[in-house]
Amino acid sequence: MLPVHRALAERVADAAAAVVRSYFRTPIAVEEKPDRSPVTVADREAEVAMRSLISAERPSDGIVGEEYGSERPDAEYVWVLDPIDGTKAFVSGKPSFGTLVALLHRGAPVLGIIDQPITHERWVGITTGTAGALTTLNGEPVRVRACPRLDLAMLYATAPEMFQGADAEAFARVRSAVRTVRYGADCYAYALLATGFVDLVAEASLQPHDFLALAPVVQGAGGVITDWSGGALGLQSGGGVLAAGDRRAHDQAMALLGGQ
Amino acid sequence: MLPVHRALAERVADAAAAVVRSYFRTPIAVEEKPDRSPVTVADREAEVAMRSLISAERPSDGIVGEEYGSERPDAEYVWVLDPIDGTKAFVSGKPSFGTLVALLHRGAPVLGIIDQPITHERWVGITTGTAGALTTLNGEPVRVRACPRLDLAMLYATAPEMFQGADAEAFARVRSAVRTVRYGADCYAYALLATGFVDLVAEASLQPHDFLALAPVVQGAGGVITDWSGGALGLQSGGGVLAAGDRRAHDQAMALLGGQ
Repeated sequence: MLPVHRALAERVADAAAAVVRSYFRTPIAVEEKPDRSPVTVADREAEVAMRSLISAERPSDGIVGEEYGSERPDAEYVWVLDPIDGTKAFVSGKPSFGTLVALLHRGAPVLGIIDQPITHERWVGITTGTAGALTTLNGEPVRVRACPRLDLAMLYATAPEMFQGADAEAFARVRSAVRTVRYGADCYAYALLATGFVDLVAEASLQPHDFLALAPVVQGAGGVITDWSGGALGLQSGGGVLAAGDRRAHDQAMALLGGQ
Repeated sequence: MLPVHRALAERVADAAAAVVRSYFRTPIAVEEKPDRSPVTVADREAEVAMRSLISAERPSDGIVGEEYGSERPDAEYVWVLDPIDGTKAFVSGKPSFGTLVALLHRGAPVLGIIDQPITHERWVGITTGTAGALTTLNGEPVRVRACPRLDLAMLYATAPEMFQGADAEAFARVRSAVRTVRYGADCYAYALLATGFVDLVAEASLQPHDFLALAPVVQGAGGVITDWSGGALGLQSGGGVLAAGDRRAHDQAMALLGGQ
């Protein structure tokens, strides 16, 4: 990652936040995309603002965004953008959604931002460079907490409806093994995991723009995040994500997801 | 309701908020109560602060609180307090919980406060007096939105696990009739309904301290809130609550809850 990337990533998040704030709790239309997920003028304008900044400053970097697709996805550096992760929360007026900015270097996520524009909370995770991995919340370092056993764990997922078929059975095994399950936090659940207040997040039916920014935030805080096979997350990853603050909880949940 | 009650209600919410803020995102122990719900030092200290203020200023009013039980529940005026509605969200560091303050006059809720101490949002609903019913968010009036049909509705509930047996079947009928369902907002969902961004909230397994403050907030904004039989909410109400911004959506959901 080049020094310019870090500063640009923050400006990209700032640009999205200004758009998102201007539409929050205003009566905007909610359209349905072909995959039945909702989208609004705020999602679209925020992604345009983010892409414009990146294209102007780093014209040879690639960009993959939720609303406007891929440009140069094989470039050395690729930005992966989700202007509003949690559009259903956003249109409900609930500030648990976030803007996601990821930077990949040769396919691996090296920088991630989870920005909450209404509560003015920004998590930045970096997993490369001379300073070592680090995640900050508004500039202050944060860390995961220990959770040696699943029966002590606070588990989050966005909604039970995201698990279909075999995924639903796999999630049910994890849910029945933990202390508490809560729903409805979108990307905010991963940010809380990185801050030491949530132990486990298990989700399915996600796309790369949903999860690539989460990886550096979780890893920079000392956590573990993989797909449901234990593999590293990249642009080719499938829909399942498992994040844990403690590797022991990750191992135990992974065994349950795999049916062991 | 006497003029002294309105001012006191705000000070009661202020007292709880100061305690709750001081413990938010600190590593506090989570104990389990006999009903398996969680409780922390923040819940207890906040309720003590609230009760102390009321006892000093209105010694003949009754008080019913989540953590410390009932005093004079048959008084003309009774305060119903929930220091942290959404303790699981609170201990996760997620600011979607709230402090609830209700005032009953001869058994009917006439004032309700939903206070979010981290985002500094306070909804106050009043359903009696010469000025007519009114709900405000930080002093500005809010209103529900129209929703003539359930298939247009945004539905919230705290968690699918709150519905057991026949309640689960009844909720599933409503869920399958709406446009979108989201979870994980606790009292905040009712506040968003009163503000015109959520259409329907259906919940079960609640207690009077969970729902009595919600009634004036929903009603003051023009909405409808009842138990699952369509009855008015009071200290004797059962565990089900159905709130809607539009009476037509309430009627349709009530028919589905009743199996029609």
